[in-house]
Amino acid sequence: MTKKLLSFILACGLSTAIGLAQSPFTPAWSNLTGQEYPQISPDGQARVRLKAPDARKVQVAGGDGFTKTPIDLTKDAEGYWSGTVSNMTPGFHYYWFIVDGVQVNDPASVAYFGYGHPTSGLYAPTPGEDFYACQNVPHGMVREHWYFSEVTGQWRRAYVYTPAGYDQNTSERYPILYLLHGAGENERGWSLQGRMNFILDNLIAEGKAAPMIVVMDNGYAEARGEKASDNPQASLARRTETLIDVYMKDILPTMESFYRVKPGREHRAIAGLSMGGFQALNIGLTHTDLFAYIGAFSAAIIGGVMDNPSTAFNGVFANPEEFNKKVRLFWFGVGSEETTFVEMANDSRKKLDELGIRTSYYESPNTYHEWHTWSRCLHEFAPLLFK
Amino acid sequence: MTKKLLSFILACGLSTAIGLAQSPFTPAWSNLTGQEYPQISPDGQARVRLKAPDARKVQVAGGDGFTKTPIDLTKDAEGYWSGTVSNMTPGFHYYWFIVDGVQVNDPASVAYFGYGHPTSGLYAPTPGEDFYACQNVPHGMVREHWYFSEVTGQWRRAYVYTPAGYDQNTSERYPILYLLHGAGENERGWSLQGRMNFILDNLIAEGKAAPMIVVMDNGYAEARGEKASDNPQASLARRTETLIDVYMKDILPTMESFYRVKPGREHRAIAGLSMGGFQALNIGLTHTDLFAYIGAFSAAIIGGVMDNPSTAFNGVFANPEEFNKKVRLFWFGVGSEETTFVEMANDSRKKLDELGIRTSYYESPNTYHEWHTWSRCLHEFAPLLFK
Repeated sequence: MTKKLLSFILACGLSTAIGLAQSPFTPAWSNLTGQEYPQISPDGQARVRLKAPDARKVQVAGGDGFTKTPIDLTKDAEGYWSGTVSNMTPGFHYYWFIVDGVQVNDPASVAYFGYGHPTSGLYAPTPGEDFYACQNVPHGMVREHWYFSEVTGQWRRAYVYTPAGYDQNTSERYPILYLLHGAGENERGWSLQGRMNFILDNLIAEGKAAPMIVVMDNGYAEARGEKASDNPQASLARRTETLIDVYMKDILPTMESFYRVKPGREHRAIAGLSMGGFQALNIGLTHTDLFAYIGAFSAAIIGGVMDNPSTAFNGVFANPEEFNKKVRLFWFGVGSEETTFVEMANDSRKKLDELGIRTSYYESPNTYHEWHTWSRCLHEFAPLLFK
Repeated sequence: MTKKLLSFILACGLSTAIGLAQSPFTPAWSNLTGQEYPQISPDGQARVRLKAPDARKVQVAGGDGFTKTPIDLTKDAEGYWSGTVSNMTPGFHYYWFIVDGVQVNDPASVAYFGYGHPTSGLYAPTPGEDFYACQNVPHGMVREHWYFSEVTGQWRRAYVYTPAGYDQNTSERYPILYLLHGAGENERGWSLQGRMNFILDNLIAEGKAAPMIVVMDNGYAEARGEKASDNPQASLARRTETLIDVYMKDILPTMESFYRVKPGREHRAIAGLSMGGFQALNIGLTHTDLFAYIGAFSAAIIGGVMDNPSTAFNGVFANPEEFNKKVRLFWFGVGSEETTFVEMANDSRKKLDELGIRTSYYESPNTYHEWHTWSRCLHEFAPLLFK
């Protein structure tokens, strides 16, 4: 075995990145080094392939913008199953194979954490958009920041973006954005799938966004001695309470004493996507003393909360004039094709408007409940902060 | 679809972490949150499980310390395939399922980058060892550091560990260790599989190792305009040349101007595992003007290089006395069960000894060519640096 290993070590990496001349299909830029498949065409098709000579049935599936229903693949003489996905929407999509009924990731893809487990992903073409590309500009960093949470009694890991120059300009202080991920994902989602570091690097380099620190923490938390499984029904509300507690007692104090943060609520923002958007609304609207900027990406105020607007979120909407002065930005963003979320966001905004609460709105064209919606949201939202 | 998504978002995370009272098998601590399987017993057995009602044959396989040959699993009435792996060696092991001939990762596991693609992994019990655990000590950080490589013409990503206190003690300078990963892995391997940050956090907190900066870069590099596929035969040597070039022209200048590094060769070390060990020997031994400490984990000097010791590595062994004075530590580490590597390391050391070159040696008990060997190597090696 070890001799086999040795030859593997010596041979490894001699991968063949086969160029496919004259084909509109080229390996996706997001493939692992040297992987031929998936291949992408400029008009948003993807050719996928998996070797499975002994399988009886292989399909490819993924999120809404990839394909709404699984697509059957066909097998060639060498045992490769392949097929073409048409009409992908722009940007990042999760995808996977289904081999004889079992979900299988593509060995040619990075494994992104989505749906509660590692999942393959690719980037479809985004004509005219390079806001999320790694460009020739000064780059910030993303740090894995471990800290002990008194609320949960456990060590937790945050990902923290510090902008270019943070390490050199040691007397400069920065505003801070808390950026929350969605359900089934984790604290690495925003930097890996969402490419938030490149989005901010580019915006900051163009002078369109203020250099800022961004904290991305895990959206799940259980208080010491509690288990979600003890009471699943009560768990969601309880978990939200716990998460707010973690933000107030652990995350904000830890991050704002460690990093050189500008003091004061006008230098502090919170935003999130989907589950993280609901959480950002909960945390932000109950703590407008702390946050001057609130963003909900693919999220809204739901569940009858607005039936009693004067008591909602500890009465934050009771005095609209004061709210509008205090909360400098109350921002909703959605993808045009995620119709339920579009409706929810519009319903929230309508009710808020009736109260005299000012909101802002952005709709990402031709995207679903998926990362390109949220990358675009960040790209639209970040320039509005800390002005 | 979006309504389904919404209920997923609201329900997500209400996972059931079922406790198994009276069983010596408990969910592995390395499982994703709430996942029951794999389960581990204190004596190094693992129970694995995968739902695949329509599959005809399911096996579990992995590296040498996990199982030498694939193990057939058996199916229950609900379509779960399960089985037990016996006699695992301590520490981290890659593993995977084989479903009707296709390699399938465990959805209950983090996907670690190994064998050139995402691969499941678990930690077997390590009785009496907690050197790699996240302990209640001050923690350093691991940063994703993007930089432009003039040699390759591309942006590259390094992972950089800065020790606890680095951000606060802004006038302090630190020694630096360049730590290289193995074949089929990447720049994240040392911090994720290898838990190098916790190992160093613990050693530094105990006063056993000097606070140091550790740079972990990618071990693959192709010069501008070159492709490994152009000439696979010549590629290994050429790639090693290119990688040395990347270290000299890109990595060292970038890292040592960005981070507060102590100047001088006596504050600079290089080490690596397997392929990275061969690379560290190549880089270190051809640049003893830069490195005072050299470590080879599961690696050795091979391929007839020692047939002409006076010219090997630009003649670095020609004057043993000078070498021994200059290179303060020339360290080899292996796992006791990876016999080919044990032989290679001992052969190298014998030849070096005959020349009068001083080396050090460590053998990790009961481990193969795998991460626990290398985590232990780092744990032994780091305290010897920068004394």
